[in-house]
Amino acid sequence: MRIAVDAMGGDNAPQAIVEGVLLACKDFPTIEFQLYGKESEIRKYMTEQPNIKIIHTDEKIDSDDEPVRAIRRKKQASMVLAAQAVKNGEADAIFSAGNTGALLAAGLLIVGRIKGIERPGLLSTMPVIGSETGFDLLDLGANADNKPEHLVQYGILGSFYAENVRGIKKPRVGLLNNGTEETKGSELTKKTFELLSQEESIHFIGNVEARDILTGVADVVVTDGFTGNAVLKSIEGTALNIVSLLKKSILDSGLKGKIGALLLKDALKNLKNEMDYAKYGGAVLFGLKAPVVKTHGSTGPEAVATTIRQIHTMLESKVVEHLVEKFEPKTND
Amino acid sequence: MRIAVDAMGGDNAPQAIVEGVLLACKDFPTIEFQLYGKESEIRKYMTEQPNIKIIHTDEKIDSDDEPVRAIRRKKQASMVLAAQAVKNGEADAIFSAGNTGALLAAGLLIVGRIKGIERPGLLSTMPVIGSETGFDLLDLGANADNKPEHLVQYGILGSFYAENVRGIKKPRVGLLNNGTEETKGSELTKKTFELLSQEESIHFIGNVEARDILTGVADVVVTDGFTGNAVLKSIEGTALNIVSLLKKSILDSGLKGKIGALLLKDALKNLKNEMDYAKYGGAVLFGLKAPVVKTHGSTGPEAVATTIRQIHTMLESKVVEHLVEKFEPKTND
Repeated sequence: MRIAVDAMGGDNAPQAIVEGVLLACKDFPTIEFQLYGKESEIRKYMTEQPNIKIIHTDEKIDSDDEPVRAIRRKKQASMVLAAQAVKNGEADAIFSAGNTGALLAAGLLIVGRIKGIERPGLLSTMPVIGSETGFDLLDLGANADNKPEHLVQYGILGSFYAENVRGIKKPRVGLLNNGTEETKGSELTKKTFELLSQEESIHFIGNVEARDILTGVADVVVTDGFTGNAVLKSIEGTALNIVSLLKKSILDSGLKGKIGALLLKDALKNLKNEMDYAKYGGAVLFGLKAPVVKTHGSTGPEAVATTIRQIHTMLESKVVEHLVEKFEPKTND
Repeated sequence: MRIAVDAMGGDNAPQAIVEGVLLACKDFPTIEFQLYGKESEIRKYMTEQPNIKIIHTDEKIDSDDEPVRAIRRKKQASMVLAAQAVKNGEADAIFSAGNTGALLAAGLLIVGRIKGIERPGLLSTMPVIGSETGFDLLDLGANADNKPEHLVQYGILGSFYAENVRGIKKPRVGLLNNGTEETKGSELTKKTFELLSQEESIHFIGNVEARDILTGVADVVVTDGFTGNAVLKSIEGTALNIVSLLKKSILDSGLKGKIGALLLKDALKNLKNEMDYAKYGGAVLFGLKAPVVKTHGSTGPEAVATTIRQIHTMLESKVVEHLVEKFEPKTND
């Protein structure tokens, strides 16, 4: 098992990336890690390791680079070389905390789609409040416009992910809609509902509303990339704002509030842990020939290690191979 | 000023509605309230009042009624009679806490659109965290599919509302999108961006992301009804889940946590108040010939009174008349 790592992607690169890989090394001594990036920088944070290879390059993609242009022009960028390694069969998966758009472009243009999958979707496992089991939401914005057929494929992709990577038997697939009734929705969701109802390979449970997804009404929630992006950012924005408001309220309420906060430390920590979806790993551009996984740019070593664990599970479960079997059926000779 | 009140709509009707109207009566002795509903039920919660008229009817629309059918068949329902009163010029606005879909249908089919407005939008003022000023979000789901032209009208509608009803000079209008860059978006938002940039009657500030709207990046946020509905429900769902998780964490953390919660009472109350958007009133189906305003079905008397105050401001500011002037320009004879 070989993972190509973009060591230069993210706000805290290469330090957080290297330290995260070192953490993961302990758990997975059989993985070969290929770190793409500036060798002198990478070496600051590690000594020689038998299962870590450094592939030096001076070039990298910046967070404000225009994605497709960056992928095409910066041929020696750490992210591009990592994607090339996957394409050439020298690595089995790619990990980056860098420019999301560029990683999506690298995934589509270099790693490539599984035959039969029209629009790979960006998938993330989100927290279900009060439970250790999350739910998979896709597409989170790899696409801005989707057709019903894409959404049906997201249902299948999400179901394969939940079953293979998260170990959920017969995952419940819900369609994000503006009401739970069958007749509700936009032209897109009405047609998608019809098609998902006919799709026998998944367990479609009907429409679900954004209000209820955090409580675990479905294991997989399917939506178009525009809506998925808006929902993800609404959840993030609301959670961040509430937490910062709570902090501010505590600071403003004087000594009494500070003692209260101290006594509530465990409860507040628990809240933070429940909402932290980095515990499930990164976002996967799913539907490609290999795992292409992205974590937040501000990620720390722990989250990097968690994402490596997620990639390990994806490779071990052979979820991509299973998808290929589903979407590229063998012809009977 | 005469407000037609659907006294039978909502989970706590008619009690919460009647008690809310009684509260509002004290602040606005010059408003004439017309309560539509079962007289014997209404009388349980009030004595004779000079400025409250009761118009008895036995029929009402239930929360699970199919909206358009209910409006067409239940001709004597309290909501339908209230809407008819507005249509016939016997009342200036309608208030209901009942079936949202039915109220939207009553607004469109009975009260009617302002000439020139293609698709009235459902607008609600949402909280900006850490500030008393909120922002107006529309469309929240009156429409499932929108065209760019509709979204431009939402920009104008929202701007008129923010300026007239909330007293904001030159409201900043933002377009909800999946990135702030001009080139970002779906076919719908790209075209809308272009049209909004050309619309000189409003102060368009460009794209805004769902992550940032709660921090007040814009005074008016424009989106299609499907996305707006998903964003509203995501914010609600996240806030509700965090608060209930916090409560559970406190309960689970024993005596220490309970004392902490007691000391933090003010901070937690402040949090609840900041997130409570009922303080801005109800949701307005905006673009109709008269104010049509809806509050949550679970609403209590205080929120009813707040919504009456909002309707009063809408009528006093003549925001609907200003819209008519904008959209129905007088021909030069």
